[in-house]
Amino acid sequence: MDIVMDAQALNAFLARDFPQVADDHVVEAINGDVLTARLRVADAHLRPGGTVGGPSIFALADIAIYCAILSRIGPVALAVTTNATIDFMRKPAAGRDLLARCRVLKLGRSLAVAEAMIFSDGAPEPVARCSMTYSIPPKQPENSRL
Amino acid sequence: MDIVMDAQALNAFLARDFPQVADDHVVEAINGDVLTARLRVADAHLRPGGTVGGPSIFALADIAIYCAILSRIGPVALAVTTNATIDFMRKPAAGRDLLARCRVLKLGRSLAVAEAMIFSDGAPEPVARCSMTYSIPPKQPENSRL
Amino acid sequence: MDIVMDAQALNAFLARDFPQVADDHVVEAINGDVLTARLRVADAHLRPGGTVGGPSIFALADIAIYCAILSRIGPVALAVTTNATIDFMRKPAAGRDLLARCRVLKLGRSLAVAEAMIFSDGAPEPVARCSMTYSIPPKQPENSRL
Amino acid sequence: MDIVMDAQALNAFLARDFPQVADDHVVEAINGDVLTARLRVADAHLRPGGTVGGPSIFALADIAIYCAILSRIGPVALAVTTNATIDFMRKPAAGRDLLARCRVLKLGRSLAVAEAMIFSDGAPEPVARCSMTYSIPPKQPENSRL
Repeated sequence: MDIVMDAQALNAFLARDFPQVADDHVVEAINGDVLTARLRVADAHLRPGGTVGGPSIFALADIAIYCAILSRIGPVALAVTTNATIDFMRKPAAGRDLLARCRVLKLGRSLAVAEAMIFSDGAPEPVARCSMTYSIPPKQPENSRL
Repeated sequence: MDIVMDAQALNAFLARDFPQVADDHVVEAINGDVLTARLRVADAHLRPGGTVGGPSIFALADIAIYCAILSRIGPVALAVTTNATIDFMRKPAAGRDLLARCRVLKLGRSLAVAEAMIFSDGAPEPVARCSMTYSIPPKQPENSRL
Repeated sequence: MDIVMDAQALNAFLARDFPQVADDHVVEAINGDVLTARLRVADAHLRPGGTVGGPSIFALADIAIYCAILSRIGPVALAVTTNATIDFMRKPAAGRDLLARCRVLKLGRSLAVAEAMIFSDGAPEPVARCSMTYSIPPKQPENSRL
Repeated sequence: MDIVMDAQALNAFLARDFPQVADDHVVEAINGDVLTARLRVADAHLRPGGTVGGPSIFALADIAIYCAILSRIGPVALAVTTNATIDFMRKPAAGRDLLARCRVLKLGRSLAVAEAMIFSDGAPEPVARCSMTYSIPPKQPENSRL
């Protein structure tokens, strides 16, 4: 599959359309079929014990997967998550950013499936694993079908 | 199953141990086996189009399910989510709070399973459905097994 | 939502189109928004210890949810499961049939979401909980879009 | 993680403890951290249209993941699936066996998480993706805690 939006274009898209998340999240690279996104961990993401909370991990996976899909289909703001499953496997390391490494497994006409593995920056073993399904709206002329 | 923490006790627990979420989230009631929690929707929760974003819906489900489990076992701060699955089914209504109605399906010695249905306040059809598994740490004398 | 296929019509559909499963599985009733299906447990479904294995529980949930969706949209043989999540919570009781109680949560133009709770016949607490998403093919004139 | 049961030992274990599935399923190889298992597709696995049905795909993933966990911990017959999520992404190719490639993501004291990607033999793109959590019973002396 070809890349139609690179990391720079995705970050510009996030900054314009998702300003609430663009401060904390950045697409770092797209290498082959793996997109890497970073959560710049700040106090707002922490739970008791000083580690990143589940909803912040979920948000990182959601943004990484969304960007991985957009990297293939372009800036379709209306693509929406229909299903998400996440396995929380290890406590994130304290004081480290989180990285999501994401792969698109299926890019169909109306559904896309992707998965992300989440790591503490520098750690070899994953903090969490997530898969999501996105519903992709039909292109303009058929829009009335929605 | 008996209720060992009521809504008031759960809200006090959230305020003390989870101050980042206690402003936005409140346990409203426990009726029979259903716990109801509310997300007081604010600008920080909104995505483009003015509706509540997926991570905020996930966070509400997480807090509601956590509280539903604590209502049965008491304030075990170390219970952690190990798996979460969420189906996003409808766009939340604009300008409405979200309500989670949550039920504990299994309360085992080491694992608990619960589900939550998420509604826009006043709307009959669910915005999302979520199930989660929590790992419950063993009681003190056996703590060394961890 | 109206019922367009009742239990009798669904069982006839299974017998014709899914003869491999129609011997073991039967739609028992549709009451309000709950469809109940039964797995007539036989030796082929058992795992070591004499209880029904996970794949047989999955198959029952799949058939119950498929029939619940068809009960609303009619005999669309091409509807396919795109995502399934199942929580196995308790060991099935030995020597008992399994019952699935299933509810459609969303019936959209292209996606349907439903959930099933699985019980050992006569037991009050669920053996498993399952949710599935089905992709529904567009109606004939639009078939070329697939 | 070390391998304590190889493919031959796992197939012998299946033949002895799971005779119902051992005819159709075989562990082919363990290379590094990937276990490969095969479903020898037969008529009993087919659904209308001549492709392998969802429950048979689920069963293959279940057996592959179970064996991948046993390859690390030895023949613990009591390990049980607590959660499974499967994304069905493409129709299996007609007349081909299915292969599961499975990886253990976490092997904790009481929970293991693994994932499997399912392919039609010879096809490059996955038919399905599955992740499962297994509950591992405590070792003998602590057995009374169950």
